[in-house]
Amino acid sequence: MIESAAIIGLGLIGGSLARDLAAKGVRVFAGGRDEAAVRAAAEQGIARPLTWNEPVDVVVLAVPVVAARELLRELVGRMEGVRLITDVGSTKRSIVDAAEQMGIGDRFVGSHPLAGDHRSGWDASRTGLFEGARVYLSPTRSTEADALELARELWTMIGAVPEVMEAAEHDRRLAWASHLPQAASTALARALAEAGIARSDLGCGGRDVTRVAGSSPEMWADILADNADEVLPALDALELELRALRRAVASGDRDLLRQLLASGRNWHGEQP
Amino acid sequence: MIESAAIIGLGLIGGSLARDLAAKGVRVFAGGRDEAAVRAAAEQGIARPLTWNEPVDVVVLAVPVVAARELLRELVGRMEGVRLITDVGSTKRSIVDAAEQMGIGDRFVGSHPLAGDHRSGWDASRTGLFEGARVYLSPTRSTEADALELARELWTMIGAVPEVMEAAEHDRRLAWASHLPQAASTALARALAEAGIARSDLGCGGRDVTRVAGSSPEMWADILADNADEVLPALDALELELRALRRAVASGDRDLLRQLLASGRNWHGEQP
Repeated sequence: MIESAAIIGLGLIGGSLARDLAAKGVRVFAGGRDEAAVRAAAEQGIARPLTWNEPVDVVVLAVPVVAARELLRELVGRMEGVRLITDVGSTKRSIVDAAEQMGIGDRFVGSHPLAGDHRSGWDASRTGLFEGARVYLSPTRSTEADALELARELWTMIGAVPEVMEAAEHDRRLAWASHLPQAASTALARALAEAGIARSDLGCGGRDVTRVAGSSPEMWADILADNADEVLPALDALELELRALRRAVASGDRDLLRQLLASGRNWHGEQP
Repeated sequence: MIESAAIIGLGLIGGSLARDLAAKGVRVFAGGRDEAAVRAAAEQGIARPLTWNEPVDVVVLAVPVVAARELLRELVGRMEGVRLITDVGSTKRSIVDAAEQMGIGDRFVGSHPLAGDHRSGWDASRTGLFEGARVYLSPTRSTEADALELARELWTMIGAVPEVMEAAEHDRRLAWASHLPQAASTALARALAEAGIARSDLGCGGRDVTRVAGSSPEMWADILADNADEVLPALDALELELRALRRAVASGDRDLLRQLLASGRNWHGEQP
């Protein structure tokens, strides 16, 4: 049972997690660089400032992927009584490896909740963010059953749906399912900026496609760099598909165009 | 004043237009290939089946761009008393040119409402679809003032916001603002299909980026082919931006990645 949790980083994910855990009666302690957020969470009765003077069951590193590794290194000496150490990052190999190397692999489980949107920071955080959301759990080679159980409990408690996935498989899949769409959206945004087209010139469709281009550059630079070996083949595949479309447009071959568009629609799953 | 209108094609756009005009007291006649939709519109008291036995003020060709040209040719002899002939297609040069060549340029104004989503057909049509939506109006070289005024009235009446734009400028802008996002979404969908990633594996962000991949292949094959000369340079620009991102990912240069992502975010307009 989780009675207390320390959440470091009160951004969209950490802040929302703090709100939901507090609402479930968990004693939440909050830390991180954003002192105003920590203060606001304290004033709203959501979390007390983290001092490490009280023991906690769970530590959640709710900071970008590179910062999470550094934080883990910084905190490893303070987390002796902690039963579960987890994170919320979009890549899993690097943090899982780091935990293993620091000798805390037995108590570490990487988490990646598929929740949130392009906004960031405490002001964007809210209750119910994880309701129905998938959360990938990536154990280390030495994660103990108790830690994995606590990780399941942590996320299930606030309505998320855990799915255990080995870190390498997670990073491969997410390169396609999340990192590639982000790259596509950013590339499109940059092309439109260059062409002098404003986002307000777009219809609903164009706005959908470019929405995540508004995501945090700091967070995404870390993710794309951290998962580079998996992201590169995905980028190459997208380029090939764009070229196939380009050839069909250039040739004026409507049948081929229809075929390419239809296969996209079939994948999407809303055939007529 | 618009007292009567013939709408040919009861898809998402034509069907929604019929609903809204009928609600404003316009006598609506409906035609088109989808006989079940024409019947449904009649049963629901929205529109009577179009027979051309009664005069109409306005004719709206609410069919895909290539079909609209053919329909115009077919109907040109029947539209003598009609004061405004318009369409709803996503490209404007070809239909405006066709109207001019058929000698009905004086009464023709091309329309392109930025409304709708990836769904299509009468079942997707609904009232209020055009509320607050921008609608581009592209006159011919010989459009008369009365026809342009009626086109404004048609769309303003149902809550849309008309903006007059020369057909060539329209097609150039829309190649970027609408046709390129569609191509990007379809290319991404195809890459994901190939990689064995289902749409249900995606988070909110990925789902946004791939939403319009579910659009009608028939409609979009026509649009992309019809606007090929403007779409090709847009596709090239997107490919260049993808390659720039690829180089940054491959080099592991986080500063460069941050810079590329930040310019996308700046364009998006939600800086922190």
